[in-house]
Amino acid sequence: MIERIGQRTLRFAEPPLLLSHAAAVGKKEGEGPLGAQFDFVTQDDRMGQKSWELAESELQKTAIDTAIKKGGLQKGDLDVILAGDLLNQCIGSFLASMQSDVPYLGQYGACSTMAQGLALGSCLVAGGAARRLLAAASSHFCSAERQYRFPLAYGGQRTPTAQWTATAAGAAVLGMRGSGHIRITHALFGKMIEMGVTDANNMGAAMAPAAYDTISTLLSDLGAQPQDFDCIVTGDLGHVGADLLLTLLREDGIDLSPVYSDCGSLLFGETQDAHAGGSGCGCSAAVLCGPLLRDMQADKIHRLVFAGTGAMMSPTSVQQGQPIAGICHAVVIERSNA
Amino acid sequence: MIERIGQRTLRFAEPPLLLSHAAAVGKKEGEGPLGAQFDFVTQDDRMGQKSWELAESELQKTAIDTAIKKGGLQKGDLDVILAGDLLNQCIGSFLASMQSDVPYLGQYGACSTMAQGLALGSCLVAGGAARRLLAAASSHFCSAERQYRFPLAYGGQRTPTAQWTATAAGAAVLGMRGSGHIRITHALFGKMIEMGVTDANNMGAAMAPAAYDTISTLLSDLGAQPQDFDCIVTGDLGHVGADLLLTLLREDGIDLSPVYSDCGSLLFGETQDAHAGGSGCGCSAAVLCGPLLRDMQADKIHRLVFAGTGAMMSPTSVQQGQPIAGICHAVVIERSNA
Repeated sequence: MIERIGQRTLRFAEPPLLLSHAAAVGKKEGEGPLGAQFDFVTQDDRMGQKSWELAESELQKTAIDTAIKKGGLQKGDLDVILAGDLLNQCIGSFLASMQSDVPYLGQYGACSTMAQGLALGSCLVAGGAARRLLAAASSHFCSAERQYRFPLAYGGQRTPTAQWTATAAGAAVLGMRGSGHIRITHALFGKMIEMGVTDANNMGAAMAPAAYDTISTLLSDLGAQPQDFDCIVTGDLGHVGADLLLTLLREDGIDLSPVYSDCGSLLFGETQDAHAGGSGCGCSAAVLCGPLLRDMQADKIHRLVFAGTGAMMSPTSVQQGQPIAGICHAVVIERSNA
Repeated sequence: MIERIGQRTLRFAEPPLLLSHAAAVGKKEGEGPLGAQFDFVTQDDRMGQKSWELAESELQKTAIDTAIKKGGLQKGDLDVILAGDLLNQCIGSFLASMQSDVPYLGQYGACSTMAQGLALGSCLVAGGAARRLLAAASSHFCSAERQYRFPLAYGGQRTPTAQWTATAAGAAVLGMRGSGHIRITHALFGKMIEMGVTDANNMGAAMAPAAYDTISTLLSDLGAQPQDFDCIVTGDLGHVGADLLLTLLREDGIDLSPVYSDCGSLLFGETQDAHAGGSGCGCSAAVLCGPLLRDMQADKIHRLVFAGTGAMMSPTSVQQGQPIAGICHAVVIERSNA
């Protein structure tokens, strides 16, 4: 049963289990502070493929296959795959699952795609539409640069507010039955919030108001304080957007800082020249499905809010002067010690 | 409650109501054989906007607003919007709903997007995750030509197997409570089926095997014959793909022809120079949310299979020589005379 509490938060009376998870990342991401906590780190960002798009697809496929294997499952055990990425027509995702023989629902939520898949997936599992499903998302620095900015060979300068698209993918399997202690207890679908930002090199500013809307609604609906969670993590506001989010919440008398992190800020170290931090669908997907869920399994985190943030724009919409809306979908993930 | 019957068909014990629906189309579509049955026909395919992308967005917004109004509803009555289109990063859809203040889940299923939204939406409503939601999809000939083929000014020649991307949008509101006689009783999520087609000008051939897989699975799961339905409609195989689908089913001893139509074949008349027929997310969305659902309301169709077909490709994937997979999601829609 799915119950609505407060304005918009969905509560699962019998919360879906997060049965398995895996993260696969690129070389630079593997050299960062979280490097040791990913399931797969490639030394060749081309992944042995002849294009960056195929490389991204192969990285997502690696995360999917690893998650399925770690769960002791086979592809045939899945009722559906929910996946998406930043590439035009989401080709990174459909190519990754094309030969899987599993029903497929393409998702587009920009960098909020992993959170969108988990929120939607937990509703499908809790509502009885799927016994077991997989949510996945990916991004690749080189395929994204070519599509959104310039081909790498151009050597374009990056602004200080620019984020570095992560070469990364994450996948998680949800189901009602199975072994495990990690469950998705609540989900909240985000609204697009548009505050007039038109600078495609400052996504953090475009997304922070949506993160503010979703996190403050969730806390209010649950009657909760930030300290009721071990960790509230956004993905991926980067340093600039994270500061804005803390400021917006502080104006409401909410101090998120004791429990707050951002996947984009966590992924790269200070010496890695990633400017305002990581971004891309794969960033929050890999940080969640690698380090964060490992910490939950290891009993270091018990109650986590995963709030994925996306910037709704395209090169065409930006060139045409359209504003960039942010969106933020959230799930509450809990570890039970039973 | 959602019950799984046979291999993959989901049956809704209490089927969601299709509360309202609307279709908005371009000038050429309005001049076709179905023209009088759409809610809105524009005489200006630019929709008063300064770009084709904004025109598409405005058309989808018109379908959404009309569906909400016809249902006697307001935007605030919706718990979520599921929408998608063919444009990079689905900008037609997110721009249409950006200011709606309704939670938003971007969907990408190529031309199967409307069926994907209805199948997913009916699971969310039947499972208790949403009280009321809207599914929408759109396409625009001019924005699609520029992105997939050539800008219109190029005047490129079209092959006989090519389909004409419809300038069209459809929207439908689903909910558990309300007045009405039309319900979604079953849903089936499709698998990607890839048979080696690489010709982006022959989408019908790429999609027909997926339609075959979904329709034969659905009939088998339901223990049904084609004649158990008043109408089985695909969207959008066009003339070439429709012939292939009938041939594939005939090899299994199934004669679909007495009840079969294709939205792409229905939309344009023979004199309209649309070659193999209509296509685009908006084609099946508008033909369903215009003529077909009107016929159900008027008691002319009682039991309908809506099987939306999509071709999973992008200009980049085709240029890189990747095969095109088809996908087909289906819903069964019934009119009760109670």
